[in-house]
Amino acid sequence: MHPLYNYINKYSSTLISKEDFNNVKSHFIYKKLKKKQYLLQEGEVCKYFAFILKGAMRQYHMDEKGVERMVNLYVENWWAGDRESFIVGTPSIYNVDAWEDCEVLLITSEASQRLSRDCQAFNEMLLKLGDRSNIATQRRITSISYSAEKRYKCFVENYPFFVNRFPQHIIASYLGITKDTLSRVLKKATKKVDIDKVGIKDI
Amino acid sequence: MHPLYNYINKYSSTLISKEDFNNVKSHFIYKKLKKKQYLLQEGEVCKYFAFILKGAMRQYHMDEKGVERMVNLYVENWWAGDRESFIVGTPSIYNVDAWEDCEVLLITSEASQRLSRDCQAFNEMLLKLGDRSNIATQRRITSISYSAEKRYKCFVENYPFFVNRFPQHIIASYLGITKDTLSRVLKKATKKVDIDKVGIKDI
Repeated sequence: MHPLYNYINKYSSTLISKEDFNNVKSHFIYKKLKKKQYLLQEGEVCKYFAFILKGAMRQYHMDEKGVERMVNLYVENWWAGDRESFIVGTPSIYNVDAWEDCEVLLITSEASQRLSRDCQAFNEMLLKLGDRSNIATQRRITSISYSAEKRYKCFVENYPFFVNRFPQHIIASYLGITKDTLSRVLKKATKKVDIDKVGIKDI
Repeated sequence: MHPLYNYINKYSSTLISKEDFNNVKSHFIYKKLKKKQYLLQEGEVCKYFAFILKGAMRQYHMDEKGVERMVNLYVENWWAGDRESFIVGTPSIYNVDAWEDCEVLLITSEASQRLSRDCQAFNEMLLKLGDRSNIATQRRITSISYSAEKRYKCFVENYPFFVNRFPQHIIASYLGITKDTLSRVLKKATKKVDIDKVGIKDI
């Protein structure tokens, strides 16, 4: 079945009908993005939110020193965009680009609002999406007070699928630590696994 | 008019009828909380989200050294609680308590879901609340890479009403900086105002 059909049903209490889904789908625009191509550039208004069918994307902003700071990472079945700019209509302070070649479904704010009124399953999905997104960002805010080790551990537990899709410097930036610190954390973790493999009797 | 009535209308595209509002209100439980009284304690499941009619509250977690880390601050017309625990039903890692004597309206997750189905205005309010909450947490994540000065500046711009409701050590914790750093930022800001008052001709 269509990934968006599966996604809506996952978060809706009732199965969406074929007719309703066709209506939902007709509100989206299909687009391909080549690696490094922007969905959104700093200073633009985020006109579209993207449901990712294929590929990986990232949202980041440039700090005062011109360093890229990762804000969000996304893979298939995730939504990418800048919610503030999308909702309020203000220019975005973020960039969203394709980390891999992507296929996405784009929706405007107006179309999304119309569907939330006309399609109960889509509305439920939107509510759950808001909740899930809030939960995820809340976790990130909380993790700021964690050590680098604990931060990485939580990241791997929550998002194991990110580990092989993004390189270390992107993950380090997402976690708000330096690449060297992440390197140390990973070395320490590898050592720990080696010791665990040897077993307590052998030490 | 009732604060919750005004709140729903603020975020709904159509005015809620008196009848619908009475139905909404009947799903809430009124409660008074004395200063320092908990709405939620670490380890409990968050059964209720609270709409604050009066007073100020805070959400925090205890770090590994037993230090309180502010996660959210709330005043009148804000919602307090732990969304993850409320939605997923898992024990909370947060404490939510009254910073001032409070009056709140409590709602369960089931009642909220029922109202989202039965009352279009309440549903719209919920969607907007999810958006606003996401926007706010997104801003906080972004601000992590800011200097202490810029972090405080954004805080005052976005939440001027928090400045007189919470003491410096609570605001410092919310911003993820030490009390001494905040003190320095404030001194610097005061000096700047003094220089601005003197005017460029006098220097």
